[in-house]
Amino acid sequence: MKQLTIIKIGGNVIDNSQNLHQFLLDFTALPGDKILVHGGGKIATELSESLGIEAKMVDGRRITDIETLRIVTMVYAGLINKNMVAQLQAKGCNSIGLTGADGNIIKAKKRPVKEIDYGYVGDLDENSVSSTMLDNLLKAGLTPVLCAITHDGDSQLLNTNADTIASALAIAMASLYETRLIYCFEKKGVLKDVNDDNSVVREIRTGEFEGLKANGTVQGGMIPKLHNAFEAIKKGVSAVYIGKADELSELSDGLFGTKMLA
Amino acid sequence: MKQLTIIKIGGNVIDNSQNLHQFLLDFTALPGDKILVHGGGKIATELSESLGIEAKMVDGRRITDIETLRIVTMVYAGLINKNMVAQLQAKGCNSIGLTGADGNIIKAKKRPVKEIDYGYVGDLDENSVSSTMLDNLLKAGLTPVLCAITHDGDSQLLNTNADTIASALAIAMASLYETRLIYCFEKKGVLKDVNDDNSVVREIRTGEFEGLKANGTVQGGMIPKLHNAFEAIKKGVSAVYIGKADELSELSDGLFGTKMLA
Repeated sequence: MKQLTIIKIGGNVIDNSQNLHQFLLDFTALPGDKILVHGGGKIATELSESLGIEAKMVDGRRITDIETLRIVTMVYAGLINKNMVAQLQAKGCNSIGLTGADGNIIKAKKRPVKEIDYGYVGDLDENSVSSTMLDNLLKAGLTPVLCAITHDGDSQLLNTNADTIASALAIAMASLYETRLIYCFEKKGVLKDVNDDNSVVREIRTGEFEGLKANGTVQGGMIPKLHNAFEAIKKGVSAVYIGKADELSELSDGLFGTKMLA
Repeated sequence: MKQLTIIKIGGNVIDNSQNLHQFLLDFTALPGDKILVHGGGKIATELSESLGIEAKMVDGRRITDIETLRIVTMVYAGLINKNMVAQLQAKGCNSIGLTGADGNIIKAKKRPVKEIDYGYVGDLDENSVSSTMLDNLLKAGLTPVLCAITHDGDSQLLNTNADTIASALAIAMASLYETRLIYCFEKKGVLKDVNDDNSVVREIRTGEFEGLKANGTVQGGMIPKLHNAFEAIKKGVSAVYIGKADELSELSDGLFGTKMLA
């Protein structure tokens, strides 16, 4: 079975042009088929502020109203995605920048309104990703670069969590490729002591997740991230790594960072 | 030889959501392989104004400075392109939205500075378009939707005239497909009397172009448009049509509009 590596990066890489340049060099150097998934970063917030559009929050949760959707579509799918593609091309990686609407690669469902109306936010399920179309692009020698925008199949674009997209892509592709998923974030991995960058937990097995939540090693924003990671493991992804973007090569070799296992 | 239709639309279609909806329905209904090329429209100008960025003009020519390039990348490649793709998906057309950087489909050269520095503007030559990559996408069942942004292969995105892109694509694809090129604009075709929409010139042969310029039938913005059209004819494109977007079906059948011939 051919190997595929899916890598997700966030704002901490995107917001710093020197970090991004180095990351894209390292990404290009990774052998085999690969897919890049990227989130947003500060630029969307800055553009909203320049236009006088206030971030809408309900109970501490960000709401994607129609104005915010326009902003993230412009910034994620336009400015960030296309500049990243142009930089990858210059580095010798034949990339193609996509939303989930392109090639109908990710069809999401608008999040149902319960206590909170999140607005134009997409949720994914096991039928969301077209692995066939992604496979066609990979076979054409292309490296897909996906931003955090999907669609509902009925003309509506939807803002969609990039961690969730990366996990859903990995699960869908696991039937065709031996698939690894790498989450790059601002820390060296899951830390025993959040203040000590050298306290990386090297491996977590599915059965240990609940215990690590209970004892507080995994908390806050790490909980949904690891939830996505273990969902991927449970559904056929070979391995999930989490660590720092500037250690991508060692991370993908399993030398650094935290490795999630079945 | 398989048939391919390349259609270019401009701001007059994009700026009116009802016109755009109907055009995309008609586009979806066109049989055979096809590619859509779109320009900008008012939204980029409106966004610039909202952000207090003034349009830079030199000798009546618009200059793409770095701020303007950011705007057009967001609006053309993000907002317009991706909403168009989402709408086409809903209508049953499996489209994929692209800049020239994606898949290295169009590599341009930054326009050299002579009397005027046009800024981040791309010029195309006979080696700019990767017909192989476009063919791969068409063979994967995809309909490429290209916006007016290209790249220079060295990380730089470039604002590029959409009429020129459509012509360059048609010329490059003519070696693989029997290729037709359709320019949609605000009039029913080349008019004998610019004030009479019923005075459409039904056919123009290459040899007649100079005469029509000399007698004033073709003037202003029509001159570069027809120049692109005849370049395409000269270089192997089967036929070029020019006419109204809301008559796409009749236009593509040669019933309405102006047909340019060798």
